[in-house]
Amino acid sequence: MTKKGAGSRKKPVAPASARLRPIGVIRSALKARGDSPRQGAEGAPDAWLEIAPFAAQAMEGLAIGDEIILLTWLHQANRRVRRVHPRGDLRNPLTGVFATRSPDRPNPIGLHPVTVRAIEGRRVRVGPIEAIDGTPVVDVKPQI
Amino acid sequence: MTKKGAGSRKKPVAPASARLRPIGVIRSALKARGDSPRQGAEGAPDAWLEIAPFAAQAMEGLAIGDEIILLTWLHQANRRVRRVHPRGDLRNPLTGVFATRSPDRPNPIGLHPVTVRAIEGRRVRVGPIEAIDGTPVVDVKPQI
Repeated sequence: MTKKGAGSRKKPVAPASARLRPIGVIRSALKARGDSPRQGAEGAPDAWLEIAPFAAQAMEGLAIGDEIILLTWLHQANRRVRRVHPRGDLRNPLTGVFATRSPDRPNPIGLHPVTVRAIEGRRVRVGPIEAIDGTPVVDVKPQI
Repeated sequence: MTKKGAGSRKKPVAPASARLRPIGVIRSALKARGDSPRQGAEGAPDAWLEIAPFAAQAMEGLAIGDEIILLTWLHQANRRVRRVHPRGDLRNPLTGVFATRSPDRPNPIGLHPVTVRAIEGRRVRVGPIEAIDGTPVVDVKPQI
């Protein structure tokens, strides 16, 4: 990253393959960013995760009741933002986005802890989740 | 994602901008994937996160003692893997990677809950963390 201290043995920092391929998409009643609560626990609805055919095998073993984390690509985010007033409230001092949950950040990946409510083929009902309809999902993991 | 059910009003699932730009890199005594414990809590060391100049302002507000999550790009992962024997133990049944913490997965993003130990300019001491030296970091968030 910095020239200083990076010896010739180091791996490149930005491999050419660092492109995300969505493994699915959120289908939600929330249609616009303004409709959405700021966090899933703040009154968000359940939604469907539609898994892409190429990734279907990766969901084997998921079960109703599992506590999982969806990683989304917040495709409407502004990647140039470095500091925000937390929760959009000007009374909160400007804070670096790494110390906040702002969707606007250099790599706008969202973390959404949710419960699996139902599984129907490649569709997984999850919630509560504040992600809007059409949000690409890039990974699913067990909760930490 | 699937043609079926995706109306013309829907946003494209794979926006052209879904390319990650590392915001920093891990500098660790762990040099190879085989050296590394499977999870940070299993005896991993502390390491340095070196933040790239373009992202430095985004770390304003981080403080010693903060509990944060580093998101890494697991650049040595195999993105074609869909099922694994959890923890590499053949006695564990083949399981879809979305139900496991396998680094091998379609989008190999790692989640690393760590504590901030020290901050020196654009270098942040964090731990414990099992990520190996040279691992690109793509985001930093408060713990969920």
